[in-house]
Amino acid sequence: MTEALKRTLGTCYYPEHWPEEIWEADARRMKDTGLTWVRVGEFSWSRLEPVPGDLHFEWLDRAIDILGKAGLKVVLGTPTATPPRWMIDKHPDMVAVDAHGNPRKFGSRRHYCFSHEGYKQESDRIVKLLAERYGRNPYVAAWQTDNEYGCHDTILSYSDAARTAFRLWLRDHYGTIEALNRAWGNVFWSMEYRSFEEIDLPNLTVTEPNPSHTLAFRRFSSDQVAVFNKRQVETIRAHSSAPISHNYMGRITDFDHFKVGDDLEIATWDSYPLGFLEDRVGAAPDHQRTYARQGDPDFQAFHHDLYRAVGKGRWWVMEQQPGPVNWAPYNPAPTKGMMRLWAWEAYAHGAEAVCYFRWRQAPFAQEQMHAGMLRPDNADAPALQEAKQVAEELRSAPDVSSPQAPVALIFDYDADFAWAAQPHGAGLSYFQLVFDVYKALRKLGLSIDILRPETRDFTGYKIVAAPGLIHMPEDLKRALSGCSAQVLLGPRTGARDKNMVIPVPLPPDIPGLDVTVTRVESLRPDMPLALKKSGTAAGCFRGYREELEGAADIVLELENGEPAAFSNGHMTYVGGWCDEEGWLHLLRDLCKSARVQTFEVSGGVRCRDTDGTRIWTNYGSDPADTPAGRIEAAGVLFENL
Amino acid sequence: MTEALKRTLGTCYYPEHWPEEIWEADARRMKDTGLTWVRVGEFSWSRLEPVPGDLHFEWLDRAIDILGKAGLKVVLGTPTATPPRWMIDKHPDMVAVDAHGNPRKFGSRRHYCFSHEGYKQESDRIVKLLAERYGRNPYVAAWQTDNEYGCHDTILSYSDAARTAFRLWLRDHYGTIEALNRAWGNVFWSMEYRSFEEIDLPNLTVTEPNPSHTLAFRRFSSDQVAVFNKRQVETIRAHSSAPISHNYMGRITDFDHFKVGDDLEIATWDSYPLGFLEDRVGAAPDHQRTYARQGDPDFQAFHHDLYRAVGKGRWWVMEQQPGPVNWAPYNPAPTKGMMRLWAWEAYAHGAEAVCYFRWRQAPFAQEQMHAGMLRPDNADAPALQEAKQVAEELRSAPDVSSPQAPVALIFDYDADFAWAAQPHGAGLSYFQLVFDVYKALRKLGLSIDILRPETRDFTGYKIVAAPGLIHMPEDLKRALSGCSAQVLLGPRTGARDKNMVIPVPLPPDIPGLDVTVTRVESLRPDMPLALKKSGTAAGCFRGYREELEGAADIVLELENGEPAAFSNGHMTYVGGWCDEEGWLHLLRDLCKSARVQTFEVSGGVRCRDTDGTRIWTNYGSDPADTPAGRIEAAGVLFENL
Amino acid sequence: MTEALKRTLGTCYYPEHWPEEIWEADARRMKDTGLTWVRVGEFSWSRLEPVPGDLHFEWLDRAIDILGKAGLKVVLGTPTATPPRWMIDKHPDMVAVDAHGNPRKFGSRRHYCFSHEGYKQESDRIVKLLAERYGRNPYVAAWQTDNEYGCHDTILSYSDAARTAFRLWLRDHYGTIEALNRAWGNVFWSMEYRSFEEIDLPNLTVTEPNPSHTLAFRRFSSDQVAVFNKRQVETIRAHSSAPISHNYMGRITDFDHFKVGDDLEIATWDSYPLGFLEDRVGAAPDHQRTYARQGDPDFQAFHHDLYRAVGKGRWWVMEQQPGPVNWAPYNPAPTKGMMRLWAWEAYAHGAEAVCYFRWRQAPFAQEQMHAGMLRPDNADAPALQEAKQVAEELRSAPDVSSPQAPVALIFDYDADFAWAAQPHGAGLSYFQLVFDVYKALRKLGLSIDILRPETRDFTGYKIVAAPGLIHMPEDLKRALSGCSAQVLLGPRTGARDKNMVIPVPLPPDIPGLDVTVTRVESLRPDMPLALKKSGTAAGCFRGYREELEGAADIVLELENGEPAAFSNGHMTYVGGWCDEEGWLHLLRDLCKSARVQTFEVSGGVRCRDTDGTRIWTNYGSDPADTPAGRIEAAGVLFENL
Repeated sequence: MTEALKRTLGTCYYPEHWPEEIWEADARRMKDTGLTWVRVGEFSWSRLEPVPGDLHFEWLDRAIDILGKAGLKVVLGTPTATPPRWMIDKHPDMVAVDAHGNPRKFGSRRHYCFSHEGYKQESDRIVKLLAERYGRNPYVAAWQTDNEYGCHDTILSYSDAARTAFRLWLRDHYGTIEALNRAWGNVFWSMEYRSFEEIDLPNLTVTEPNPSHTLAFRRFSSDQVAVFNKRQVETIRAHSSAPISHNYMGRITDFDHFKVGDDLEIATWDSYPLGFLEDRVGAAPDHQRTYARQGDPDFQAFHHDLYRAVGKGRWWVMEQQPGPVNWAPYNPAPTKGMMRLWAWEAYAHGAEAVCYFRWRQAPFAQEQMHAGMLRPDNADAPALQEAKQVAEELRSAPDVSSPQAPVALIFDYDADFAWAAQPHGAGLSYFQLVFDVYKALRKLGLSIDILRPETRDFTGYKIVAAPGLIHMPEDLKRALSGCSAQVLLGPRTGARDKNMVIPVPLPPDIPGLDVTVTRVESLRPDMPLALKKSGTAAGCFRGYREELEGAADIVLELENGEPAAFSNGHMTYVGGWCDEEGWLHLLRDLCKSARVQTFEVSGGVRCRDTDGTRIWTNYGSDPADTPAGRIEAAGVLFENL
Repeated sequence: MTEALKRTLGTCYYPEHWPEEIWEADARRMKDTGLTWVRVGEFSWSRLEPVPGDLHFEWLDRAIDILGKAGLKVVLGTPTATPPRWMIDKHPDMVAVDAHGNPRKFGSRRHYCFSHEGYKQESDRIVKLLAERYGRNPYVAAWQTDNEYGCHDTILSYSDAARTAFRLWLRDHYGTIEALNRAWGNVFWSMEYRSFEEIDLPNLTVTEPNPSHTLAFRRFSSDQVAVFNKRQVETIRAHSSAPISHNYMGRITDFDHFKVGDDLEIATWDSYPLGFLEDRVGAAPDHQRTYARQGDPDFQAFHHDLYRAVGKGRWWVMEQQPGPVNWAPYNPAPTKGMMRLWAWEAYAHGAEAVCYFRWRQAPFAQEQMHAGMLRPDNADAPALQEAKQVAEELRSAPDVSSPQAPVALIFDYDADFAWAAQPHGAGLSYFQLVFDVYKALRKLGLSIDILRPETRDFTGYKIVAAPGLIHMPEDLKRALSGCSAQVLLGPRTGARDKNMVIPVPLPPDIPGLDVTVTRVESLRPDMPLALKKSGTAAGCFRGYREELEGAADIVLELENGEPAAFSNGHMTYVGGWCDEEGWLHLLRDLCKSARVQTFEVSGGVRCRDTDGTRIWTNYGSDPADTPAGRIEAAGVLFENL
Repeated sequence: MTEALKRTLGTCYYPEHWPEEIWEADARRMKDTGLTWVRVGEFSWSRLEPVPGDLHFEWLDRAIDILGKAGLKVVLGTPTATPPRWMIDKHPDMVAVDAHGNPRKFGSRRHYCFSHEGYKQESDRIVKLLAERYGRNPYVAAWQTDNEYGCHDTILSYSDAARTAFRLWLRDHYGTIEALNRAWGNVFWSMEYRSFEEIDLPNLTVTEPNPSHTLAFRRFSSDQVAVFNKRQVETIRAHSSAPISHNYMGRITDFDHFKVGDDLEIATWDSYPLGFLEDRVGAAPDHQRTYARQGDPDFQAFHHDLYRAVGKGRWWVMEQQPGPVNWAPYNPAPTKGMMRLWAWEAYAHGAEAVCYFRWRQAPFAQEQMHAGMLRPDNADAPALQEAKQVAEELRSAPDVSSPQAPVALIFDYDADFAWAAQPHGAGLSYFQLVFDVYKALRKLGLSIDILRPETRDFTGYKIVAAPGLIHMPEDLKRALSGCSAQVLLGPRTGARDKNMVIPVPLPPDIPGLDVTVTRVESLRPDMPLALKKSGTAAGCFRGYREELEGAADIVLELENGEPAAFSNGHMTYVGGWCDEEGWLHLLRDLCKSARVQTFEVSGGVRCRDTDGTRIWTNYGSDPADTPAGRIEAAGVLFENL
């Protein structure tokens, strides 16, 4: 599906942080390390334009020239994530406002509201200047827009600019205020509006706002990101034919990455396996302790697969953790070997490039404790050695490869918005549900393609899993109903219409699936509901459960005999949130029906198939045995298929 | 004490949520279910007055007519808990302000400050319009003012309107600023004021404000509710002779319900046994897990007894949980049978009516996940079946009955304000203390009357418990001292004067009780103080303990021999917060002295006596044996006395 | 080092709280109790100046006269911690602003911002009036400025006044904006400023601000306290020759006490052993439970040693806990004997005076539950009896003594600011690190001098410990390198330059110590790194660890053989945060090398040496054996040396 490309390495470099005298030596050393790519510029606005209108691009010209002449390809970032201090004087109301109503001040980064038109024009302006100057530069081989949209909780803004834009967005989407009132059920609690101008942002209400209101605000906020990004893309495209990318983050689901990705050639992401472990993976403390120096064995893989889809096949790791980071609650050093392992895990999932962040550790400012490939004193840091090893290995490695996987898993940002608007039980999230299914699939040795929710053609897949799709359009229902794959649905499938209203007939209401959810409940974490399959224990439901009726075949039961999952032909509906054992029971059956071969991995061992090779990784602290032989702790093993 | 009335059932109905075509079928189905009452109107302001002054009562006329003609009696609610969006334009400063200084915005409900005169006039106006129109309507058999005062933490408001009103209230209560300074001890920390205009609301101070200041603000805030409610009542009374009620909530103690109740004929409350379990019962996690599908075995009973007192004998459950709710941290489904059990528990405590909330689950807006008697698709939900069974049983049931109980328990909202102003130890609350004593009394098989703190005549009671009455007026001291019941006092009895100052002589200073509290301490939860009675273990104190001196008889000791409780004639003073075992030891002795027969229930089994019948309930998950025979899990048992 | 002085007792008295008729009896009773000192006036502004400019000093004249004539020496406090309500009208913007942007309102105390010039002039004015009137009063034998700087988190203020003053402070310290940008590394994330006027306070930023920015703001905030205090001192000195003091608090590290202390003759502090136990000692719950009635065995001693240094040898306990306090999460009563023990612990560390707070418990306002030496009803409280015993014992006790200790421990407030600006791992704090080392030294039976970081002459010390000194000036490095003591360094020694930038060469970069920290990591609390010494277990690192290289001798290893601590001649560098066992292993070796005799105390037993006497204290609940004989629980034992 993607064109054949060499796997490459790279790094992120900030020439403005270092004396110009050492740029050339740095460039040579990068090249000697085996790097292909170097990203520059994305935080440099105060050096490009220290005073409004006073432009200083010469230093960047020289930096790009030095890097390019050393044989490196440059990714040029637009600097809009860090507008200089003077921008605040020009546009005092450009900053985002938090949910408590506090403006988010200058002094770090991402201090802008996506809805502020004045700032969007500034963004267009600086991007145009860059595109004009570097659009045909022979060394600029790719672009990056902005940096890490959504990082530091920067999508949802409760500013005046956002309020005004939200009202326009609502008018565009609903046409009349009567239609909106009807769609949201605003007759409830006398919340009816007489005009769009009466609608406020859904923060600081006495008790929770209407979930339809919240969902609309989340969709609006997501769209603002896509518009902001698209304006940059169009400006660059007018002057450059190099591919354009954006570097997404781990588990940021506040905007629809697929929509942003539609306007870009390449998706990249910033992979910090240890940094993510504490607050984003969602694991229990003992798991966090076990993998404190390696990262979760599935979290990176999930994002690799996700961003491969977002990039329509083309994707990179733009920032790869190179040692301890500075920003997590705890910042341990990775086990020796992990910086190589993480790179190979990325290549196994089809990455074109893996760029270590950053070249040399900066001794100053917020990220002074963030490791680099070099130490602040210019000595080699451990990442440099591991990168060299990867570079060596890449010489004899095959091209980028990402064959269609046997299993598809649908991921829908809009569903995540809806779950966030109404989790129904404390701690329930769509992302976590999908990730739980993903982990169980990985435990069965399977390679997975993540699909966007607009997918209607499932040709070639033997299994399609679509858990938690709370709003499922009719044509997707029909496509799943009509496809030849084994399909896994539930819980909450089709539980709401697109305005967050319960549909009648009751969900899931899918052709060919005789199941109805008659009542749902959320559960304390300490009250699991035991499951059984053909009379034997089969894990449990935790946190969420649905009461089911229907004429389909019961394939999983609660201990008390009530149905827990039904199958109807090739479709299986599960009425609850399984634990790992529960998912494995369900998925093993699906694999059997779909004639997909499985082999269960254990501990920290995982694998993924590329064309002709199965790449094994071991996140564990001990060597382990695989069907392909013994794999060291923190090791990588290549098996010919 | 109350007139003989038939026990009845009812529901809450929102005709404005449904097409007019189905109102009649709904009404018939209610009647067929065996319902007597239907509450309407309390959130419908935007449909009654979609534009200021543009009134649309015709639909409500028709709805009431249809319901009435079907044989149902209507409770008409005033819609003041949900002023429409246009009200905010008329009165931008009408919203309450939270303790952090943030206005609480439109977008849900209860978005008004009780001190805002402009809004109070709007409230009077809409109530007058309703009263004029429906005051003589034959089907409107009762009224409800507003909805759930205090829900969503809406009593304490830090708005400009509240500040102004608070200053006037203080002037009314203290007369001169010198008197206030003296009463509060404002010489401390130079907090003296020169005029009432200098006094601010007690939020956002550098460290805690003067507890006298906090207590005054809580009393003021409580009084504002009573005034708001009284204005509605007087407006309705001018046009209607139907009884007027308000639907209180569980464990909302921010206003004095007795004062509000003084102006009403009937107290009602909204009973959500599962919804309350997580955040309001105050139980440990294992108890929450055990009763996750049944609710706490005592929490409803306590409120039944409390609101019987608030209603001066007349009380209902206005909203009875009919299945899972939407608003608790976790929202499980009730065990089959509980919706019947809860109704019988209410009748056992003298309820005239039990109304399930709501008739049909709304598929939209905030409460879309709140179950109803019907599902959103109009099918019967489990509550409907259980209501039918209750209706059937009621046919042969005796009238409403609430004979005087042998045990009285005083509940004083003002004491709760004072404890909140100064808990002295983390987590200590007056409500929890009184509820702990209540639970122990229930464990002994006793029926209880809750009394308001103004009670002076205790004739007929064999035991009077008055724990935690931090301010005890002299005439109450005399009344307790002079009554013939066994009296349980302490801890903190009379520990403060009415301005929150420690009195001299030191507390409790009660005639005929030779006990003095010389020092008090609060304790970490993990440092219980073991108690002994006549040398054997008798539970422990937890959280709070007083050092006692006196010539009375020591009836409970600490392990080290220091006195823990004294008895002097018919009065017992306990100098600490007992655990369950400690309370049981004390209360068994009191019962013996008072010649009150006890029998100890266990697990989830409880009972209450009405005239001629002891009604047993089993909140447990297993059948249990009682003196009256075996009772099923979630079962109800009727024993003739 | 300090002049010979009699050890004395005292109390804190608020004549304005009591009728004038009882002042004389109070004074007599104080004298009879054996008290020497009585502090007055520090919260009395509203009585001294009830209306702006309307002064009423007569009552204070009379109070001082009565106390003085009874034979008591008066400490007169300036009342600036509690400006009256009218001050807010004069200076509405004088209040501090919290980190969320909320002004901190009138209604308790310390409601002023140290940067507000208008308030500083008011402070000067009232202090001048007091100094003029009482500067030569024969009974005023000492002064106190303000009260508990920093209590209730009052050092960091985000007000407009603070912003303006911060910019001026930055200009003073950096000269040019270019110098500041360079020193802070503001090129990072385009944070460069064009002028000092562009710099805001480091709150409410999108993600963390530049740690250099935070550190500068903390230094500025600390300096504001010193300036505020110095203005009071200079005003008093113009009229009085009595010594001037300030009463510091426990574990408040938001300002540099040494800088404030430079302007004062005496340091005092307010010692609340039980109040501090829950939130300030940093102990685990079981330790908190064990010592709930005694206080931590080392926390008071640490502050005694610290404030002896702050006071340049002269120090008091100005407020000694006399029973339960009112302000901690839990407020238990002390074990009988502790109020005597705490006094003797203070004398053992060289205190000149111990004053119990307060004379009589106030029945009103915020501290109504704070015990006194008398109960509110004027009866003796337990503290009075214990104070009498101490007074009796003092009659035959030697003079104040504080010989140089064998061990020195450097404490640097600036290092605490820097750690707070960048803890790197959740929960890591400089104070806790130093306190952990202090505790281990106490466990070895050692007496300790705490030294300020400006110390360069270590003559006479056998051991100098300087853990965690994140910025170490070159001359301190040389002084430590050149001294004859055994020196303990690390972790984080010299890890940043004075602007919070990582230095090159990498730390610690100390002459004569061949050790380099090549990488650091912070660790989850549940992943300790086991240590070994000569092959046997020797505790572990927790929370923080450094990778070390060097040619010095390895004296402690990780289990995997990597170096954990190096010694180079008389200098030892430890690359991590040890647990108690780890510190003990390291310190025992140092003591052996330094020929310092140790004896390990256990449980709650501790000792300290004064001239000729070793004073033993037992914080435990059971009697214990010491080399000097048996010591009772809560007991004190005097051993002649």
